[in-house]
Amino acid sequence: MKNPLTPEVLADPVALTRALVDIESVSRNEKAIADWVEDVLRGVPHLTTYRYSNTVMARTSLGRDQRVVLAGHLDTVPINNNFPATVRGDLMYGCGTSDMKSGVAYALHLAVALTEPRYDVTYFFYEAEEIESAYNGLFLVSEAHPEWLTADFALLLEPTHGIVEAGCQGTLRATVGTSGVRAHSARSWHGVNAIHAAGEVLRRLEAYEARRVTVDGCEYREGLNAVRINGGVAGNVVPDRCTVEVNYRFAPDRSPEQAEAHVREVFADFEVAITDLASGALPGLEAAPAQEFLAAVGTAPVGKLGWTDVARFAALGTPALNFGPGDPNLAHHPDEHVEIGKIRDGAAVLRRWLSVA
Amino acid sequence: MKNPLTPEVLADPVALTRALVDIESVSRNEKAIADWVEDVLRGVPHLTTYRYSNTVMARTSLGRDQRVVLAGHLDTVPINNNFPATVRGDLMYGCGTSDMKSGVAYALHLAVALTEPRYDVTYFFYEAEEIESAYNGLFLVSEAHPEWLTADFALLLEPTHGIVEAGCQGTLRATVGTSGVRAHSARSWHGVNAIHAAGEVLRRLEAYEARRVTVDGCEYREGLNAVRINGGVAGNVVPDRCTVEVNYRFAPDRSPEQAEAHVREVFADFEVAITDLASGALPGLEAAPAQEFLAAVGTAPVGKLGWTDVARFAALGTPALNFGPGDPNLAHHPDEHVEIGKIRDGAAVLRRWLSVA
Repeated sequence: MKNPLTPEVLADPVALTRALVDIESVSRNEKAIADWVEDVLRGVPHLTTYRYSNTVMARTSLGRDQRVVLAGHLDTVPINNNFPATVRGDLMYGCGTSDMKSGVAYALHLAVALTEPRYDVTYFFYEAEEIESAYNGLFLVSEAHPEWLTADFALLLEPTHGIVEAGCQGTLRATVGTSGVRAHSARSWHGVNAIHAAGEVLRRLEAYEARRVTVDGCEYREGLNAVRINGGVAGNVVPDRCTVEVNYRFAPDRSPEQAEAHVREVFADFEVAITDLASGALPGLEAAPAQEFLAAVGTAPVGKLGWTDVARFAALGTPALNFGPGDPNLAHHPDEHVEIGKIRDGAAVLRRWLSVA
Repeated sequence: MKNPLTPEVLADPVALTRALVDIESVSRNEKAIADWVEDVLRGVPHLTTYRYSNTVMARTSLGRDQRVVLAGHLDTVPINNNFPATVRGDLMYGCGTSDMKSGVAYALHLAVALTEPRYDVTYFFYEAEEIESAYNGLFLVSEAHPEWLTADFALLLEPTHGIVEAGCQGTLRATVGTSGVRAHSARSWHGVNAIHAAGEVLRRLEAYEARRVTVDGCEYREGLNAVRINGGVAGNVVPDRCTVEVNYRFAPDRSPEQAEAHVREVFADFEVAITDLASGALPGLEAAPAQEFLAAVGTAPVGKLGWTDVARFAALGTPALNFGPGDPNLAHHPDEHVEIGKIRDGAAVLRRWLSVA
């Protein structure tokens, strides 16, 4: 089969977005798209290309003072009656249009087009961002080949609707449990109802006042929410166990350890078990390439509220920003789409940034 | 196969209890036990015997002024490493020893032994009490042959540990729901958390003061409990729905309609859906056979807190009491057992009551 990523397609970020959307690549099924992307990159004389599982990396070696990474994941969430891509007016619909094949198209387009970028550039296309960390291509490479990711600055092309979103908030999940004593509900005074006891957990959540924190001019807004609750044994039994699962999104001025201590303090006197904990990332606006990127965009950055892989770059010591044409609120929706004008605008920004000598 | 309910076994309520326990009869598997019981009853000259599905009824027709029913269910909950029966000292262990083959043994023993009872007696052995009402033999016969159940008084031989438990409490189940608006938990202020909103439902349950009501000298103690709670969409979503299932056990001075109105008042402003509602039964101590039965027992009755099929008799206009040797707290437990002395004591009480001219 012929590679659908032809020179004509690669020359146009919009056509390239559509071609990438039309290569189905639900998480754990990225082989075909990785094969085509690798095939393209190996044909570009100014790049050296590497592959690890279904993650593909290519880089220039021009001896520049600075190196930047442009990164995007190749996988999508499961298709939901939104494959292949369709275009209606200025909107392109389909699974991955927003999250994030339009961002991947930026990087692949520039990898081919820019023979002499102002910095050395690492183009990084990775697998399995939408599922558990254990499969994440950026995580796997950071373990197996951390030197592939060495850079002064990273741009993650996740959907931000054309603005610059800086850093990201951390996320913590915990279960908060209550215990009681079972009894037949016809003689309930012999028992202690664990669901009733969970009322105090919900009371604290309802009364909770979330912080709003400004770091380097970017506001981060926290949240502490119950995301699940479960309790009960049978219709005639006073239950002895109730579990509330909470999700704390915390600003990047707090470390994971501080976030955990805070949650344990909020739910003092209850059984708290941390089930998931990921660090946030500070905005990372100080690096010279970051400043020059912001100048090319021309608008002020805002804080990224969702957790993204910029936190993985931050953990590697590389400041990172989020920038992509898709609307993050449409990601994972059946009617996911991207504004075609925004693809063109963003591609022009990146070309301007990387081309100015 | 020879009927294990031999004349020697039928003459001894303890041996008969054991023989009945050793005929496995988990709900919906009562054919064998019903066949053997029917076979016994058809051989008794002073009884006329009828069968409907796996429910068997036999009655005297002596022209007495009063008719009483002795009733017991033939089925058990599922076996749980407690079959067949074993005897250790004064205790007989096994599935159904307490609930309620010791009670069934009373009725079957007396059906054979008492040729001239002081009242006309209807012996009623029914299927499927431990599962949904739709299968309950007492319910099915009350629909198909209500005349089989006509009587001035009914004694239900459910486990009461040798005391008289009068009437029963009603039971109501309802779901109390809260609604919200979904949002990504990273931007939770765009949503409304339905689990947090359920805090007020639990607060009302925790603060609830249950009534204690005395009717005809019997105390009934109510209870209102959450028995299940469920809510949540995913680990990163502010949930838009939470459901608390509550169980209200209400004294028999309250009608089902009054019970429903009360629950709706307690949870005013929430979405309340009634999922199950069964009337209680007043103590029913006025009938002459009831008074004479209480005299034979010699101890004061107490209110029955759990719901039992006495409510079905009450609905048919027949006052009913609960009386059996088993400990109701051991029913449905793996170590279910009955005190052999209590079987003998109760059988003596019943024989005294039904024999006195």
